Parts: sequence; C-alpha cells; structure tokens
Amino acid sequence: MIPPDPRQLEQARAARSSYRGGLVEPTSGVAPGLVQANLIAVPADWAYDVLLYAQRNPRACPVLEVLDAGSVASRMAPGSDLRTDLPAYRIWRDGELAGETADASSAWEEHPDLVSFLIGCSFTFEAGLAEAGIPIRHQELGRNVPMYRTARACAPAGRLSGDLVVSMRPIPAGRVADAVRISGRYPAVHGAPVHVGDPAGLGIADLGAPDFGDAPEIRDGEVPVFWACGVTPQAAIVASRPPFALTHAPGHMFVTDVPDANYLA
Amino acid sequence: MIPPDPRQLEQARAARSSYRGGLVEPTSGVAPGLVQANLIAVPADWAYDVLLYAQRNPRACPVLEVLDAGSVASRMAPGSDLRTDLPAYRIWRDGELAGETADASSAWEEHPDLVSFLIGCSFTFEAGLAEAGIPIRHQELGRNVPMYRTARACAPAGRLSGDLVVSMRPIPAGRVADAVRISGRYPAVHGAPVHVGDPAGLGIADLGAPDFGDAPEIRDGEVPVFWACGVTPQAAIVASRPPFALTHAPGHMFVTDVPDANYLA
Repeated sequence: MIPPDPRQLEQARAARSSYRGGLVEPTSGVAPGLVQANLIAVPADWAYDVLLYAQRNPRACPVLEVLDAGSVASRMAPGSDLRTDLPAYRIWRDGELAGETADASSAWEEHPDLVSFLIGCSFTFEAGLAEAGIPIRHQELGRNVPMYRTARACAPAGRLSGDLVVSMRPIPAGRVADAVRISGRYPAVHGAPVHVGDPAGLGIADLGAPDFGDAPEIRDGEVPVFWACGVTPQAAIVASRPPFALTHAPGHMFVTDVPDANYLA
Repeated sequence: MIPPDPRQLEQARAARSSYRGGLVEPTSGVAPGLVQANLIAVPADWAYDVLLYAQRNPRACPVLEVLDAGSVASRMAPGSDLRTDLPAYRIWRDGELAGETADASSAWEEHPDLVSFLIGCSFTFEAGLAEAGIPIRHQELGRNVPMYRTARACAPAGRLSGDLVVSMRPIPAGRVADAVRISGRYPAVHGAPVHVGDPAGLGIADLGAPDFGDAPEIRDGEVPVFWACGVTPQAAIVASRPPFALTHAPGHMFVTDVPDANYLA
C-alpha cells in the first residue's frame, strides 16, 4: 500500500477525533488525498444481500472493506471506531428513517452481529479534480454535494432492490472531458460519470431540489455532471425495508488513512 | 455493453455446444476476444464466505457474475447451461478432489441451492497480448497454461482461507513492460502481473513442475511473469474443506458471449 504522508495522517486522525467528540460537518475537502467511505451496516443475516447488491452494482457500490460481524475497527484507519468516528449517522427501521445521530454505539448494542460495509466515495477523486484546476462548487460554497434519486433501477440482489442515486457537480463545458478522464482513473471509487448533462434522462425533474445534500449553483457555461453515489444503498433500504440498518448521513463520510493513489487504476 | 461480433458469437456458441456434447479441451485461445470465466459453485450457506473471500482478494478472484441459488443460466451467455457447457469440472468433498467430469448436472441434483460464481480469467487479456505480438507460449505449444500454488496467503474470509495461485507466461525481457501495460488495462480480469521474475519470491521451487496445467517452456531471454489466477478459490477449498464444491477444471473455462473490451478500465 502507498502510505499516507504524516500531515495527511494527522488531518485524518484529527477529523475522526473531532467527530468522535461530537462535531457534525460534511466531510468533502477534509484530509484531502485520503479516501473517504460510505458506511452501511446490517445484521448478519442481511450481509449476503448487501454484498451481492454491491457486486451487481459496482459503479454505485464499490466495496472497499467488509468488516467481520460485530467488528468496528476498520483496517483502513488503525485505531478507528466505526461506532463514533463518522460525523453523522442514520438509523433505519423497516426502511424508514428512524433517526440521525452523531454516536451510533447503540446500534451495535442492539445488534451485536452488525456487518459493516465501507463503500467508495466520489469525494476521493475531488482532490484530483481540484488539483487539475476544476472547480468543486459545493466546497467553494461550504455546502454538501447535491445528490439525486434517479429513475434508473439497480440490478436487484436477494431481498434488495432500488434506484441509482447520483452526486452532481457543475463542470465548465471545456473541462468536462478532463473531469471524465481524471475520475475515470479511480474505478474503485465510482470512476467516470454515469451521465453528462440532460438531467431529465436520469429522471431528475429539478436540479435545484436534490434528494440529499444541498442545492447546487450552476453557472453559465457549466454542465451538470453525474457520478454514481454511495448513497445508493440507502435508496435500496428505503425500497426494500430490511428490519434494521445503520448508514452514514449523506455527505458525512468515514475519513480513512488510505491515500487515494492506492485506488488509481 | 459492447456487443460481440457475429463471428465471435458463433465461435463461442459452437465451443459451448461441443463441450455440452462431451468435448474436453483447455479453452485458451477459444473464441478469442470474448471473456472466459472460472467457475466455483457452493451450497447457499457457503455463498457469503465465497463472495467475501473474492471481495478481499480481488486480484485473484474478480467476480464477473453471481447467479441466484439454483440458477444455471448465466447472463454472460444467453442460452447457456453451467451444468454442461464447460469442457471439464471438478467435484470437491470436504476439501478433497472427489472426481472430474464433463457433465456436472448431478451436482445440482445433489445441491439444488448451489450458488455459482463466475470469476475473471487471464485468458481474457491473452488476446490483447497476442495482438501486440507478445508470444503466448502455451498456445503455441497446444498446452494448458502452467499454474502454481504460491506461499503467499490470501486474506481470509469467514470459513475460507488459502494461498494465492498464479498463472505464468514466459515473456521476452523486452516485452515485459508491454505485457504489464496491456494486462493492466483489464483490472476486472486479474489485471497486471503480481510478480515478475524471481519464482522463489513466490515460494515456487520448480517452474518445470506446475501444480496445475502443463509444464512451461522458457527460452533464452525470457522472464517468467506471474498473474493472479482464478484457480485461487480451489486452493481455498483444499485448505478450508467446505463439505461440497464444484469448480471448472483448471484451464477449462466457461466461454461467454461478452467481448473483452467491456472490461477495459
């Protein structure tokens, strides 16, 4: 593995420590150059469905790590604790959002056999886009990235089905090809966009009203570019109603110690 | 999906039909340009272990498709039947090789809940190597590719553990970089080599005595180049002793209708 540099590592540890202490913030731009991950955790008897759903929908659900049942220590961040080290969590019961919390310890008390999946996040390649001088609008504005449920069905797996969720970044028309090329180098973290322009083609009626995250600001000469999003499993939870699930809150990711460069194709 | 051209499709269908009729042959070079796949099928209560083992060892076990329990019709080859359409199968009981057969129908009679995994195969990028003028020695000689158990442990998953298995191709020293580059374009089918030269570094004592396949012929000026191999799950079966498993016989793959180009990164 390509190791993190000490400054990056310090940033990642400081961020996780703040979140453990109760800070809630979107993580876009935090510890740039290190991988961030989506979380979905389910009781062990649902783990195969989730892993198979991910396998059949790899663009939306690229699996970075699967923890053993009950384990909360990710290999991607030694010393971390998945129960507390994300800034915000969502708890789901029978497919309904039952609450949002900054400390998910109770989930493991309730379900000691919880199996956690860490799934790649498009924040990973944002550092590459920014380095190439491509504006990351939601970061400039201090907002969360806008995310949308689409009308595109994912491949079902066992008891799970649902629609694809995408994140959107407005990109200047002259930089769209660069954004495709750069993000395409990271197939393990969503890779190239699934759709460029034409929100209606994805069944998105109003870009100004995202289903998750904050409203975007699209300027003249910019094109909306859509990437498969790790919130996709949350849409499957809503559609498929497992008795219990724990996820990160959209945009509030698990910050790891693993440099993005490890996921370059 | 990039569709196959009609001539390729005819070759793939003819090959599967011959195998269904009883022909046994290694499939390297058959229907060039179309993906070939390793098979491992286990009773449903072992499926999560296999899928997790693959997730944790993606170089060796890149999953192309997971069929639902009991299903024998692959989406990668409409009209196919996994029970009969591979040239040769191996049946495993408690980790021991219990027999080799050209017709695996009895496995599904015995275990109607068998879950089949199709795993990427390095034969996929051989067409790319050959197109670039890189010799594929085992094809030239009409032999099976040599495969070796290594001393490198895979990441364990649930009840499964075992060592990495590699395939080896002797490559002229001046073409090694090209072979790395070309195979690296196909991360979903083992990708770039895991090791170049120095067999002892993998724990391989004698290149002339492969654990699977046929002995190689290494000529002056050639370097042994090692790729992660889809026979790796068979080594895990031997080491982990599940009560039952069905696999392809090494080198005797499932020939699909899917062009290699679909797996270009």
